[in-house]
Amino acid sequence: MGRWEPDARGRLARAALDLYAERGYEQTTVADIAQRAGVTERTFFRHFTDKREVLFDPSLTLQETMVAAIAAAPADRTPVETVVGALQTAVAMLEERRDWSRRRAAVIAANPSLLERELLKLAALATAAGAALRARGVREPRASLAAETGVTAFKVGFEHWVGEPPAQDEAVQEPESPARTLADHIGEALDEIRALTATPRPLG
Amino acid sequence: MGRWEPDARGRLARAALDLYAERGYEQTTVADIAQRAGVTERTFFRHFTDKREVLFDPSLTLQETMVAAIAAAPADRTPVETVVGALQTAVAMLEERRDWSRRRAAVIAANPSLLERELLKLAALATAAGAALRARGVREPRASLAAETGVTAFKVGFEHWVGEPPAQDEAVQEPESPARTLADHIGEALDEIRALTATPRPLG
Repeated sequence: MGRWEPDARGRLARAALDLYAERGYEQTTVADIAQRAGVTERTFFRHFTDKREVLFDPSLTLQETMVAAIAAAPADRTPVETVVGALQTAVAMLEERRDWSRRRAAVIAANPSLLERELLKLAALATAAGAALRARGVREPRASLAAETGVTAFKVGFEHWVGEPPAQDEAVQEPESPARTLADHIGEALDEIRALTATPRPLG
Repeated sequence: MGRWEPDARGRLARAALDLYAERGYEQTTVADIAQRAGVTERTFFRHFTDKREVLFDPSLTLQETMVAAIAAAPADRTPVETVVGALQTAVAMLEERRDWSRRRAAVIAANPSLLERELLKLAALATAAGAALRARGVREPRASLAAETGVTAFKVGFEHWVGEPPAQDEAVQEPESPARTLADHIGEALDEIRALTATPRPLG
């Protein structure tokens, strides 16, 4: 076990999700995960600080990538387009992790404390997007509203991406019939928000 | 202290906010709050289970009122209009509590654990709005997107309502120059979202 472990991090992440799904998150220990991945606990702790961190992996720096993409966005984009475009750029690293993302979503949905953490991460994402827009000169309340709207498109797009039946795009990889990407789903969610808010509001 | 306490609940809520602002939330005890309000700790616990509950008062049933208003909304309203209109109805009870709401917001912003709870309450509000829309026959992803968009309008409208300078509408109550209500701010936030998403998106 002391030797070099090829892709120990990936094996640990997959083993953890397998066990969370089989036994439940609370019932799984770090020792269980290490054993299933065929590594020592010491190796686990070289990659993750605890079993929760496997699900909220800081190496997936979605927020940092989004903030950088907002800063680098063309000046002629509207604030909402800027945020949504940045999120579409940032999710590139998730596109190949759809099955993992789907199983992760199931574990999180089954555990209120994990769901709370996920919601807080989304709230932090919106806060960071708003700050990045203000740094580009977008005023309030436009910056906050554009940030929240963009993160809503991300949240709902992500839910639909992981919720799609896996058969077509994962059982057989057919390049001639590509599945809708996560970026597609996020774009469609924004289009839907646009349609939902397009009609004048007859409220008093 | 054993006698009947006129508006003990309101006095306790005001005393708690005064102390949270003066000493900090963590440094304030229930005994401090009861003493400031001139009641016993026993009276405090007849009204609130703990010092956090003063800030997240279940007697302010915003979510229940919103859900009932969504169920009762005219059929010709769009999903977003339905949610925003229901939130505008539900906040009526807050309109007269603006100074209290402003001070509450300052305490919450200064305490990460309170801020987390506030964000989770907003997430729960969006989840409830989405369920109430689905009960009216709105399909996914429209229901979730309309719910999130409505709650975004509420969140940002609320922030601007508590953030407005208090001078005009509270120092001197002049009925001939009414301040913008919380409902006005929520409606304006929706108008802004509409404007932000109105232009076609040139993303690939």
